[in-house]
Amino acid sequence: MKFASFAKDGQSGLAIETADGFRGLLADAPGFPGDLLSLIRAGGAALTDAGECLAKGEVVDVDAVTLLPPVSAPEKIVCVGLNYRDHSAESGFAQPEFPTLFGRFNSSLIGHGAPILRPEVSEQLDYEGELAVVIGRVARNVSAAEALDYVSGYSIFNDASVRDYQTKAPQWTAGKNFDDTGAFGPWFVTADALPRGCLGLSLITRLNGQVVQEAQIDQMVFSVAQIISICSSFMTLKPGDVIVTGTPSGVGLAREPQLWMKEGDVCEVEITGLGTLSNPIRNAAPLAKSA
Amino acid sequence: MKFASFAKDGQSGLAIETADGFRGLLADAPGFPGDLLSLIRAGGAALTDAGECLAKGEVVDVDAVTLLPPVSAPEKIVCVGLNYRDHSAESGFAQPEFPTLFGRFNSSLIGHGAPILRPEVSEQLDYEGELAVVIGRVARNVSAAEALDYVSGYSIFNDASVRDYQTKAPQWTAGKNFDDTGAFGPWFVTADALPRGCLGLSLITRLNGQVVQEAQIDQMVFSVAQIISICSSFMTLKPGDVIVTGTPSGVGLAREPQLWMKEGDVCEVEITGLGTLSNPIRNAAPLAKSA
Repeated sequence: MKFASFAKDGQSGLAIETADGFRGLLADAPGFPGDLLSLIRAGGAALTDAGECLAKGEVVDVDAVTLLPPVSAPEKIVCVGLNYRDHSAESGFAQPEFPTLFGRFNSSLIGHGAPILRPEVSEQLDYEGELAVVIGRVARNVSAAEALDYVSGYSIFNDASVRDYQTKAPQWTAGKNFDDTGAFGPWFVTADALPRGCLGLSLITRLNGQVVQEAQIDQMVFSVAQIISICSSFMTLKPGDVIVTGTPSGVGLAREPQLWMKEGDVCEVEITGLGTLSNPIRNAAPLAKSA
Repeated sequence: MKFASFAKDGQSGLAIETADGFRGLLADAPGFPGDLLSLIRAGGAALTDAGECLAKGEVVDVDAVTLLPPVSAPEKIVCVGLNYRDHSAESGFAQPEFPTLFGRFNSSLIGHGAPILRPEVSEQLDYEGELAVVIGRVARNVSAAEALDYVSGYSIFNDASVRDYQTKAPQWTAGKNFDDTGAFGPWFVTADALPRGCLGLSLITRLNGQVVQEAQIDQMVFSVAQIISICSSFMTLKPGDVIVTGTPSGVGLAREPQLWMKEGDVCEVEITGLGTLSNPIRNAAPLAKSA
């Protein structure tokens, strides 16, 4: 099943892809089954039941509505750094033998089509195309062999990074958490519709149509199964938690000359079976002080 | 005002300190004003009104109930590392000129009195006494001069860290996110009851009654006001977000011999005006696989 979280006329809704396009319901419609996070948390047959219900809903023109991050308020967004050997090398890091983890906060999330904002304070805005995993069941101390049973589904993430802020201090958090830099979408595809652990899939990032990153998901140092198993060895993963699995080589930081995203650019991340996450780049408006 | 989030007989509740001890209501009681996070998010007079309502409630024996983290499900927990010069030095870091930020996930939180769990996989469980700040209003691009107007209140945090996991990879996230290591409490004290930015307050950490950390809040490299201002320069801080402001020198990692917390120990963090956060240390039970 392929779901789309969307907004239209100021209301959120959920749609599912059917043989004749997307169909779905707005949140105030009778029979609305709930948003994706609540369905994932409900577990069991909630997603399947919701899919049947939404398939009888209205036609949703996904090019005419605003697509939202599939899961807009996950309790955690765990990002994995240095998870493709070529990228670790281009970034100047010895390949760590344990996953390099950092957190993103929800305040950085945007959906497909929304602009990634280049902040006033830096021009070093870089792309990072990545596979995103959404957890479906409480996972604690699960083995890699079992770990994929705890996945609800997958999506795409552009972990856009402000490089100078990423290295202003020993931890990367600031450079990874600018508002409007975490692009997530376009769809949520349930795990049963994809190869296990997304093995065999390809990832391509394009900037203004030019391929800048190209890799196989199989090249990840820590597979989806291993990441879940290792994370669950020290913390509880919960339904709706998002794991962003790292980017391959080709980032703008490592190029000669360096390549930064700027106003007017369009960045796309495509993963076979998961679609294409596309976002324009805009300069952030001069910051107004919050009220 | 001093609030206590608590649980009793399987139900959560909220209490306020009055002239004759704590009084409050359970969540199912008529007139329950909401949990602390919802009150902080409601803003305006919600906290004051809730305080008046709770003060007419039942007597709550805070020694007989389970104290919960004051805010149990913040959208962000932003932790600041290397924020006291002596601690940066003892940790082997040059003092960064920008705050060192990392994320904690809610899954690591426990309240006052709950055991901090030493995991099976490591004996390097260390204490870190810290001041915690709870944001009260949406903050974006606020100056340091204005930043304290965006604080709702304060509490205490023991940012217990599993040191070998903290340095298994270039980012500290794993060592900072073991389940049952983020002790938070005991109370939530509104900002109006404390010196601005907690300047002038003292922090002491004791392990089994022995003072192991002792510092003035004024010694922070980045003050509460500066941290909020800097974070708000790149991301939106929201009501209920928690900022954990860093630990002073004296951690077990930097001692000779190293000092790790172990089963049977009791760790206390005291900040003048904020009370004492006390947690026993227990060995984690052998991990059962999640269902």
